[in-house]
Amino acid sequence: MKAAFSFAVAAAVLLGAAPASAQFAKPEDAIKYRQNALFVMGQHFGRLGAMANGRAPFDAKAAADNADIVLTLSQLPWAGFGPGTDKAAPTKAEPAVWAEPAKFKAASDKMQAEVAKLAAAAKTGNLDNLKAAFGPTAASCKACHDDFRK
Amino acid sequence: MKAAFSFAVAAAVLLGAAPASAQFAKPEDAIKYRQNALFVMGQHFGRLGAMANGRAPFDAKAAADNADIVLTLSQLPWAGFGPGTDKAAPTKAEPAVWAEPAKFKAASDKMQAEVAKLAAAAKTGNLDNLKAAFGPTAASCKACHDDFRK
Repeated sequence: MKAAFSFAVAAAVLLGAAPASAQFAKPEDAIKYRQNALFVMGQHFGRLGAMANGRAPFDAKAAADNADIVLTLSQLPWAGFGPGTDKAAPTKAEPAVWAEPAKFKAASDKMQAEVAKLAAAAKTGNLDNLKAAFGPTAASCKACHDDFRK
Repeated sequence: MKAAFSFAVAAAVLLGAAPASAQFAKPEDAIKYRQNALFVMGQHFGRLGAMANGRAPFDAKAAADNADIVLTLSQLPWAGFGPGTDKAAPTKAEPAVWAEPAKFKAASDKMQAEVAKLAAAAKTGNLDNLKAAFGPTAASCKACHDDFRK
């Protein structure tokens, strides 16, 4: 019963991912796409972190702008993890991404939810709000990396 | 007089770019950042092109979503072309990027202006509008690649 349910969930997630992976000309492009989107996102997330952690002066407009870019980018990488993109090019993605798709989706959904809260916090123009939202967002990045990235 | 003016323009553009390049931990990051942002943008722009050119069925929501992503990404790469990012890592950027900064800025501004029109066209949900805006946008990409990309 549990196995059947897990299979159904996995099938649903994979079927959901199929049209997305079809958006790429070849699996290597999907791998490059997800890596590139995550790198660009990381650069902008790092600028928010520098402000949240006091390594850079707080600039309300820059914070809101960076958070909006992170918000847009946070939605992109997942389409690049479709079937057949586990080893077509060098990747730090763990096999668990494809072996435990429901768990991976939950982790990516969690990150996107935290980023949405971070973007809302950044829009308030208040450094304390940014600080409060930054930690949980960074934790959601780390949780996914711990389980799904080599 | 002409040389003095060109120098003043170049200095203004370079000074303007300095804070942006300071956002990167090292020049290699700036190069990777601009390349990655352009690659992700190109993937989404290609999906708009497939619809505009009839290689993929028109999907109004997908067109609007892709155009919005292109719009966000179109604003990013330029910060990655700061001083010292001409050869710190493999790059197809021509020396002209740094030798003719005003011309390069004009080309990147032109692209961003066309992308803004493309995003507005995509939001109308009308394929003919998308087709009309796609060509000039693609031409602005090509014009900059012709002059500034190996």
